[in-house]
Amino acid sequence: MKRVIIVGVGFGGLRAARILSGKGFDVLLIDRNNYHLFQPLLYQVATAALEQESIVYPIREVIRYWKGVRFRLAGVHGIDLEQRRVFMATGTVEYDYLILAAGSITNFFGIDTIKRYGYDLKHLSDAVVLRSQILGAFERAVQESDVSERAALLTFVIVGGGPTGVEFAGALSELVRYVLSKDYPELRMKDVRIILVEASGSLLLTFPGKLQDYTLTRLQQMGIEVKLRTAVRGAEPGRVLLGEGTSIPSYTLFWAAGVRAASLADALSVKKVRGNRIVVKPDLTIDDHPEVFVVGDMAYLEQGGIPLPMTAPVAMQQGEYAGRAILRREQGYSAKPFRYFDRGSMAAIGRGLAVANIMNLNFSGLAAWIIWLVLHLFFLIGFRNRAVVLLNWAYDYFLFKKQIRIILQEKKGDSNNFPE
Amino acid sequence: MKRVIIVGVGFGGLRAARILSGKGFDVLLIDRNNYHLFQPLLYQVATAALEQESIVYPIREVIRYWKGVRFRLAGVHGIDLEQRRVFMATGTVEYDYLILAAGSITNFFGIDTIKRYGYDLKHLSDAVVLRSQILGAFERAVQESDVSERAALLTFVIVGGGPTGVEFAGALSELVRYVLSKDYPELRMKDVRIILVEASGSLLLTFPGKLQDYTLTRLQQMGIEVKLRTAVRGAEPGRVLLGEGTSIPSYTLFWAAGVRAASLADALSVKKVRGNRIVVKPDLTIDDHPEVFVVGDMAYLEQGGIPLPMTAPVAMQQGEYAGRAILRREQGYSAKPFRYFDRGSMAAIGRGLAVANIMNLNFSGLAAWIIWLVLHLFFLIGFRNRAVVLLNWAYDYFLFKKQIRIILQEKKGDSNNFPE
Repeated sequence: MKRVIIVGVGFGGLRAARILSGKGFDVLLIDRNNYHLFQPLLYQVATAALEQESIVYPIREVIRYWKGVRFRLAGVHGIDLEQRRVFMATGTVEYDYLILAAGSITNFFGIDTIKRYGYDLKHLSDAVVLRSQILGAFERAVQESDVSERAALLTFVIVGGGPTGVEFAGALSELVRYVLSKDYPELRMKDVRIILVEASGSLLLTFPGKLQDYTLTRLQQMGIEVKLRTAVRGAEPGRVLLGEGTSIPSYTLFWAAGVRAASLADALSVKKVRGNRIVVKPDLTIDDHPEVFVVGDMAYLEQGGIPLPMTAPVAMQQGEYAGRAILRREQGYSAKPFRYFDRGSMAAIGRGLAVANIMNLNFSGLAAWIIWLVLHLFFLIGFRNRAVVLLNWAYDYFLFKKQIRIILQEKKGDSNNFPE
Repeated sequence: MKRVIIVGVGFGGLRAARILSGKGFDVLLIDRNNYHLFQPLLYQVATAALEQESIVYPIREVIRYWKGVRFRLAGVHGIDLEQRRVFMATGTVEYDYLILAAGSITNFFGIDTIKRYGYDLKHLSDAVVLRSQILGAFERAVQESDVSERAALLTFVIVGGGPTGVEFAGALSELVRYVLSKDYPELRMKDVRIILVEASGSLLLTFPGKLQDYTLTRLQQMGIEVKLRTAVRGAEPGRVLLGEGTSIPSYTLFWAAGVRAASLADALSVKKVRGNRIVVKPDLTIDDHPEVFVVGDMAYLEQGGIPLPMTAPVAMQQGEYAGRAILRREQGYSAKPFRYFDRGSMAAIGRGLAVANIMNLNFSGLAAWIIWLVLHLFFLIGFRNRAVVLLNWAYDYFLFKKQIRIILQEKKGDSNNFPE
């Protein structure tokens, strides 16, 4: 029986495993976490709308119904491409086929102070830490008598105007307006500043211009300060440093300005490009190793001269492609080159507000929001999770309540960069 | 306006605050956490049945509707009883009345190795850490080739035969039998050992003998090894040390054998007894300080020659009493001595199985379980939490699913006492 090792149980890895299950392979899934994480809703965990457990799903519950698929909880240290072996802390396994689907991590572009004092949003714990930071800042502000310190505590700087930055800014604004304003009668909500900083000239760069303008207008109407063409060069405790020597007093810097391939890519001597992504051939394999596929955020492939984006739909389609390519290979056929079918993209802005570009049609406002909501519920795994998420959203929408505003976990290391 | 400071937002503190709200006092609640924790269901978070967020409630959501009640997120360092001042990291506040309701912490009785290698269950994070340990042990066992190491990974020792130990042992047994047995087809479930160790001669010491016997029989039928009259003297990595030089190879020692008053009691030079509990007068105040009340687990008071237990009902009744006593005092009356009205006690054992002694009537089996379920849902705060808990329980009961089996957080410090 041929063994397929899949590293990573994200959107790409899971799709590949499903295709290969029950087809006579020994499929081994390896991941550091024992759950599949629905990353598109991480920002809602960070803004007190959802509990962390409602956007994850136990991997062993998924594969229970997939014949021939096993799971190992382990980090992958390295890969010997020649000997076809994967090294884990707990041992070594050999493979016939390898699918690398380890995803991405935050790209701080080498700015150490941002990594140190800022917050990012890739792992489940990041969302809990960021939520705790936001709520903690309000709790500190209540007890802070110095006016400028209090202002810095109540200033939230979001760097990166992509979907994550936009969705987070909108959700934070509504958390403040509808929930925290009642929680903290001692504070004046007009002292709260939410600043969205973007280096380029527009938000949601990959969206049609009409939707970019709509998003900008709506965010501004919600009271969010949008600073376009503004670079962030670093951070200090209580301060975000912008280009040209200016700075913003703030204790909360959320960095949503870039991602790079997971560090597993470092362990491989293969051709890589900017952001540590592995260059793949049109069939998603790497040079000289037709048995090694790379899918999702780790893979770099251009289509029509443009690099494919690091998004869930690309990872899902690539994962399915890799699974099918292996099936075809075993039947003696080769696979046609991978082609990404772009169904579109979307971003939620706020209550009943979103933008969506679907099959080249533009939607904005309530229609886009309903599409966003239905699709997110659809792609979430498990009826229980859908029920809990829907219950939370209904509470939020009809009762203006976000009940997960629980401070659980502070940032490790420089955990306490609040004023003492 | 007179100021009442209440330290702790558990069952006692919250009840006191509710009584005093809207009565013309400046009520200041202080706690290290920004949420009320429903401790009786912590063991279900530890056994993958409930998400942590479903058993907590944001304190500011509670007090939003209580006039005159404010909240400060802070730890209390010390108290100056003479000057009537409370010291926090963030400042000092003065009071006219003080209600100490900071609860209890685990009592390791000075056995450092148990504190170091064992697990306990008082805080929300403890439950997540313990759950991660249990699930992590199974994941390690799958990858462990040494038979005796694998046996130690699959052996779970619970120390303490009170309600927490009994409920946890039963829930763990069902997690293994109905869920993990399907998650880990590579492991033989008969290799899993759950051992409940109790120093005295019976489980549930405070319950009627008939219910004690029932509980013992049921737990044994569920495959749990119950060791009565057995002392635990310490722990090593991978080993639990019993009295008389024997030991049990196990990587998971859950210590549910004792509690003591919260460490805030250390900061007070007042009369204390075993377990650091503060001796209170019949009106729950302390000697020479009629303005200082101590309620709940921190307070030591005998009734009919027997110390009141450290339970939620005692804390709730004492909290209400303290609130009412302050109201009466302000009206020029003194309060009658506190009397605990014992409605009974109960413990869940498993699916449709519980024991309950209510108003001196004994219930066991399904009837007791239904009483248990209804009362726990009733005392949980918030409709959303009740809905989520009920959804989880229905999933568990009808579909044999426990979907919160997510590994999130390992123990700090000696985090990794698994074999490498």
